[in-house]
Amino acid sequence: MPQSPVKNFSLIAAIDLGSNSFHIVLAKADHGEIRILERLGEKVQLAAGIDEQRLLSEEAMQRGVDCLRRFAQLTNGLPPGAVRVVGTNALREARNRSEFIRRAEDVLGHPVEVISGREEARLIHLGVSHTLADTPGKRLIVDIGGGSTEFIIGQRFEPLLRESLQMGCVSYTQRYFRDGKITPARYAQAYTAARLELMGIEQGLRRLGWQEAVGASGTIRAVGLASKGGGQGNGELSPEGIAWLKRKLFKLGEVDKLELDGIKPDRRAIFPAGLAIIEAIFDALELKRMEHSEGALREGVLYDLLGRHHHEDVRERTLSALMERYHADLEQAARVEAKALQALEKVADAWQLDDEWHGELLSWAARVHEIGQDIAHYHYHKHGAYLIEHSDLAGFSRQDQLMLALLVRGHRRNIPQERFAEFGDEGVQLIRLCVLLRFAILFHHIRGSQEMPQVQLHAGPRSLDVVFPAGWLQANPLTQADFEQEAGWLQRVGFDLSVR
Amino acid sequence: MPQSPVKNFSLIAAIDLGSNSFHIVLAKADHGEIRILERLGEKVQLAAGIDEQRLLSEEAMQRGVDCLRRFAQLTNGLPPGAVRVVGTNALREARNRSEFIRRAEDVLGHPVEVISGREEARLIHLGVSHTLADTPGKRLIVDIGGGSTEFIIGQRFEPLLRESLQMGCVSYTQRYFRDGKITPARYAQAYTAARLELMGIEQGLRRLGWQEAVGASGTIRAVGLASKGGGQGNGELSPEGIAWLKRKLFKLGEVDKLELDGIKPDRRAIFPAGLAIIEAIFDALELKRMEHSEGALREGVLYDLLGRHHHEDVRERTLSALMERYHADLEQAARVEAKALQALEKVADAWQLDDEWHGELLSWAARVHEIGQDIAHYHYHKHGAYLIEHSDLAGFSRQDQLMLALLVRGHRRNIPQERFAEFGDEGVQLIRLCVLLRFAILFHHIRGSQEMPQVQLHAGPRSLDVVFPAGWLQANPLTQADFEQEAGWLQRVGFDLSVR
Repeated sequence: MPQSPVKNFSLIAAIDLGSNSFHIVLAKADHGEIRILERLGEKVQLAAGIDEQRLLSEEAMQRGVDCLRRFAQLTNGLPPGAVRVVGTNALREARNRSEFIRRAEDVLGHPVEVISGREEARLIHLGVSHTLADTPGKRLIVDIGGGSTEFIIGQRFEPLLRESLQMGCVSYTQRYFRDGKITPARYAQAYTAARLELMGIEQGLRRLGWQEAVGASGTIRAVGLASKGGGQGNGELSPEGIAWLKRKLFKLGEVDKLELDGIKPDRRAIFPAGLAIIEAIFDALELKRMEHSEGALREGVLYDLLGRHHHEDVRERTLSALMERYHADLEQAARVEAKALQALEKVADAWQLDDEWHGELLSWAARVHEIGQDIAHYHYHKHGAYLIEHSDLAGFSRQDQLMLALLVRGHRRNIPQERFAEFGDEGVQLIRLCVLLRFAILFHHIRGSQEMPQVQLHAGPRSLDVVFPAGWLQANPLTQADFEQEAGWLQRVGFDLSVR
Repeated sequence: MPQSPVKNFSLIAAIDLGSNSFHIVLAKADHGEIRILERLGEKVQLAAGIDEQRLLSEEAMQRGVDCLRRFAQLTNGLPPGAVRVVGTNALREARNRSEFIRRAEDVLGHPVEVISGREEARLIHLGVSHTLADTPGKRLIVDIGGGSTEFIIGQRFEPLLRESLQMGCVSYTQRYFRDGKITPARYAQAYTAARLELMGIEQGLRRLGWQEAVGASGTIRAVGLASKGGGQGNGELSPEGIAWLKRKLFKLGEVDKLELDGIKPDRRAIFPAGLAIIEAIFDALELKRMEHSEGALREGVLYDLLGRHHHEDVRERTLSALMERYHADLEQAARVEAKALQALEKVADAWQLDDEWHGELLSWAARVHEIGQDIAHYHYHKHGAYLIEHSDLAGFSRQDQLMLALLVRGHRRNIPQERFAEFGDEGVQLIRLCVLLRFAILFHHIRGSQEMPQVQLHAGPRSLDVVFPAGWLQANPLTQADFEQEAGWLQRVGFDLSVR
């Protein structure tokens, strides 16, 4: 299900399909400001339902879908683009995620996007920085999730460094505290595993530095509250509070016996793993104190959604940066983009293409289709697709990136039909977008060195008829040969291109 | 067979396994100057022996090996590193190239490298620019081979732009003039195909501009001589000469009837295709004149070989540029490189590693192992390997790039044993290099924030024993845990790592 660009809605909602909990926030958007109307959270524990083959179990899927059925009451009737649903680490991991996504989209009636760890970090920072006071210094923000932990150093609303590690309170509980026993040896194992993960990023974070450390997420709040209950601080985290809690855990020896202030019974099981991760972070980064903040991923998603219809679409900045970095020919990209959009307008009805979402995707593809040339000319369409698929592209979901990468992959030479088919029904539309992109590229193959004439386009279900002004093609046999070659490529995917 | 770094030899040789002809040049290297002693060329027509499945036929392989047996008389007795053998487009194309390479190496006793089109362009420029007078202006150099055509714009000894197109006089002959008939329609097809290929690069070349155009390769010389024979110019190429030759070809109608001054009988078959390609180049680039130059790929290979032992190894510049471009942590790379080389020295005898070639490869890998982080942190070792495998790395052969990419791919997490096995016997050594690289990386995992102790290394055929100073590991449990995790990864490829 494609993501439509957001309109000026007054009601918007964000749903966060976390590895531990699902959350929804419903808000009113009013002249660039957000007023939260409703918050709900449910402990679905998706991450606990992923087995060693990285398959999400039927039970876990059912728990998720049941929860979303309740959430859907809040979003029923909201128009396309007003609800953004993001999946994080558990869905990044699960190999059968598409099955769950399909069922979730059926229930919600809105597209589900799986986002990368760094995109998650960006959105968390956006949420937290809108929640806290706007101070000038640099902030370290840590969000311990069920399956991954995000680290951001940000200044005001600008994330300077975003990292995501594959450690979380649910996955570590399964690995080190499965049967509920708490021993110093197991705790040490969890702690050491977290320290090893942190080694890859601690120097980078320290080099940038920060003035204050803030923690988002239920795990951090729970540890803060439990410390406070033990007379250690006032809800913030400190080495002393952590040490006190650790002694307490070892004394109790079992998660069932954990009765700590501020810890709900359903948080008990994952508390020891969460504490071990927190202690590892404190030691690795030599923290003295960490405040808890309310804002998190879902608030970030809301602000991002709001930005998209206030001409602050972060995706635009991302694409511009990508074009600059890989030295794209900006003029050629602009020519191809304009021609592709013009063609889309002409065939949109016949090909059931959506002016907005498909137009957006086509624009993006036109802008970045040549970036792979910066790696090598040979097979550059494949290199461009690789960069788009694997780079951290702020603002884009995994699905966006995969579609965009496929359009770039298919923009010249053979069209890999089987890869388009992986997108199900949407694959048919994607091939049509690919045909439009290829048409626009061929049309401007001579890269602006010749004025091109207006052409007429006629689209059938699997055909495109291009009509040049009388005599033009005869006078320009290279373009004619070019389109004849193209007709051959399209024929292989059962598509008729005729040019006259 | 690995490439050893060159020593200060007085005799050096370059062998060019071209798609049309094989060539050898034997030269005396004297204080940075080269004096050619011997030149031989044979029309092997490797490209004509490649079928539609991209398999090189047994007959073509035999023709190649027979020719190399004759060449080997000139190189017999030359030490490793004194002979460089490069394969171009036909071997880039042939899927069963490794079979031919194996047989060629058996006959020659020197490694055979397959080089990319742009690397070929770089070497052609090096050869031509050493042959021509050293003028200040920019030069366009064109080399029409049997399977590919290279374009370079260079200034003095610096190549500013290097391109390689998949069109050549042998492959175009097979496609358009297979039965030896010459008709205006077939010629027009070959010409148009070449024009379409040229569209991708003509604007880039023109934007840079040039003061003079020079052609290397037998095809260009033959067309120049044939024009001269017809009273058109004095051996150079011109639009008039091309037009005259074209009319002549159409009149004769068959390649067998081609009797033109300067064209040897064995060049007749590929002459029409060569002329069509030349005319397309003249038209696309609006050339008025092209001189022929003697220098070519093989001379370039000689000068490159000479540069390597005069501290002008272009590979060093390439790697530095790669590290800079992808923002590698230079200090960490230097730490890892030093440690890896120190470790290599200790285990070289036990593991039958060659200080020079393996040391060079290990150094390279240490320097670039982190470049993939610039694309994304997640799976960055795979991104780094992708960049190294697919980038145009001046000075490196395909085989070099593949080995280097594999070391980078295997520098963390699982070691893809089956990919190492693809390198045959050399794969065993490569896994050992990979183990050394991983050791050096783990050793400096804390990235310089702690002084590391001296360790002892003991190597068995499939084991490595690391001995830290007494008590050090106990005091540094993170390093201990790190090496224990590593032992698990190595165990999976049947390698014992013990740390104490």
